Amino acid sequence: MIRIAVDGMGGDFAPREIVKGAQSISREGLASIVLVGDEQKMRPFVTDHANLDMVHTPVCVDMNEAPSNALRKKRDSSMNKAFELHKSGEVQAVVSAGNSGAAMAFAIFTLGRIPGVDRPAIATLHPRMGEGVSILLDAGGTVDCKPTHLTQFALMGNAFAASVLGIASPRVGILSNGEEETKGNELTRDAHALIKEFGLNYLGYVEGTDMYNGRTDVVVSDGFVGNIALKISEGVADLIFEFFRDGIKKSRKAQLGYFLLKDLFKEFQKKADYSETGGAPLLGVDGVCIICHGKSNEKAMRNAILLAKKFVEKGLKESVNEAMQDYQSFQKVKER
Amino acid sequence: MIRIAVDGMGGDFAPREIVKGAQSISREGLASIVLVGDEQKMRPFVTDHANLDMVHTPVCVDMNEAPSNALRKKRDSSMNKAFELHKSGEVQAVVSAGNSGAAMAFAIFTLGRIPGVDRPAIATLHPRMGEGVSILLDAGGTVDCKPTHLTQFALMGNAFAASVLGIASPRVGILSNGEEETKGNELTRDAHALIKEFGLNYLGYVEGTDMYNGRTDVVVSDGFVGNIALKISEGVADLIFEFFRDGIKKSRKAQLGYFLLKDLFKEFQKKADYSETGGAPLLGVDGVCIICHGKSNEKAMRNAILLAKKFVEKGLKESVNEAMQDYQSFQKVKER
Repeated sequence: MIRIAVDGMGGDFAPREIVKGAQSISREGLASIVLVGDEQKMRPFVTDHANLDMVHTPVCVDMNEAPSNALRKKRDSSMNKAFELHKSGEVQAVVSAGNSGAAMAFAIFTLGRIPGVDRPAIATLHPRMGEGVSILLDAGGTVDCKPTHLTQFALMGNAFAASVLGIASPRVGILSNGEEETKGNELTRDAHALIKEFGLNYLGYVEGTDMYNGRTDVVVSDGFVGNIALKISEGVADLIFEFFRDGIKKSRKAQLGYFLLKDLFKEFQKKADYSETGGAPLLGVDGVCIICHGKSNEKAMRNAILLAKKFVEKGLKESVNEAMQDYQSFQKVKER
Repeated sequence: MIRIAVDGMGGDFAPREIVKGAQSISREGLASIVLVGDEQKMRPFVTDHANLDMVHTPVCVDMNEAPSNALRKKRDSSMNKAFELHKSGEVQAVVSAGNSGAAMAFAIFTLGRIPGVDRPAIATLHPRMGEGVSILLDAGGTVDCKPTHLTQFALMGNAFAASVLGIASPRVGILSNGEEETKGNELTRDAHALIKEFGLNYLGYVEGTDMYNGRTDVVVSDGFVGNIALKISEGVADLIFEFFRDGIKKSRKAQLGYFLLKDLFKEFQKKADYSETGGAPLLGVDGVCIICHGKSNEKAMRNAILLAKKFVEKGLKESVNEAMQDYQSFQKVKER
């Protein structure tokens, strides 16, 4: 059985929702769970010990703590101890809904990076027109990027899409302000020249609309732009649903209409709901690490653990590793 | 009567939709229009000459032409001739649905910039929760920005919001990947330090969600990020409506539900439809210039002209000018 360490103290609703989500997995025998955190605080929510172990530590990383501070002072935190269990081989993946900057810092510090990766990237999955999902990376891991970072994101995203999500020949694009080669900013122009050289199904620049119209599978950006793209998406979806909620309250006719369309509204909300996806993999670290939304509830945590399990089974780490070996060989050839 | 030059040859549906939109304004006596373009091509759509003049030129800027090329070779284009009419004082505003990069280039070249403005910015208006609209700038004018550019955008956006849109003490924020001061990238960190020094109702960093939840009035970013924010918004809204269109087709129950909710769907689409807004002002040039979506139809053009008229009446140019005088005085004091 795949064994997964869960940061029991990370997230706005920790430890309750985290423990409940983890336990729903262990109880069903879907994975073996190691809950890391303050035993006294977690225990009230543990009702079934099958496939569930606890590792005690009273230290936890605050949600708003500076990652550098956590890295210096909180090596004994539930978050880092989860990564240490992964490093030592006791578990095959880590799931945390804690401070995502700190999770990234500890993942790099404790697990280390896959050779050839300068910066790991957070890859988020997005609903889109037609089948499947679009992958956006980096969604907020590395804010100030160099062209080589974007190139590595493209290769990692491609490997993830192909090997883990099973997308044949993923279409990869750089998120830009227009499709023409004359568009883009300093960073994307240099990255574009680099990415072209690898044998990807590379579309060049893609626009924000392409993330949702099904034209692209892997959308590459720096973490600053990626995070804004993510939050703008959230904002627009919230605005639209808020608008309908408001309007429906105001008329009996609209209420009846909503009643008849309820299944569709629910289906879409399910598509858009982060708790349905569970979390986002951190690509480029030497392991499987799922970073979850701070507001993760039991369902989100359950889905995040299932995602981690799937990524272990599909060989996420191995496929990124392979892609980066190609990247390094290519770099060496160029340097000659 | 306010007199407005309209680029009759700019836009995917030019000249037909442009002429029809312009004429609907002149016919009603809402403004006096100067249509600039190829007379032979425009004339078939002109049925009423009241308040409508034409200025002939056979040259027109292509939608995909490099702005630098247009600037070198197309000084006689309908687009630039419209700006020349503005420069000479014959009209008080220019409206164009043509190549927006070229429109920006000609606006700067022919009208010039307001003193103190290094880069003009395209300011787009967005629906949001509650009342009013949010202003995003720059939505794609200047891709690679310096911190002083963002500072100028903040001041211009603030002046536009306060004087033209009538928002008391507009809340201004820099679009970033998180609210904390530790977030942001190199550009926003330096811009943040600069903008703080002006007496704006400045919120610091705001997130993508804040553009739509009503927390911010003026959202500042470089043109690369702004354009992505704009297109991502479009993509998410399209995705949601496409999803409902699809779902409604599949069941009789959903069709009935849609019938009952139709008014709400229409109301939202109106809110989100760029043809309802008409266009976006280019802030920082020495005049009033409205840049429209390339796909502008008659209605969009009509609304864009009404927007131009309103901005002339409300003293858009004068209020930006005043804000930039304050900016320059402040810079001088600092240099001492």
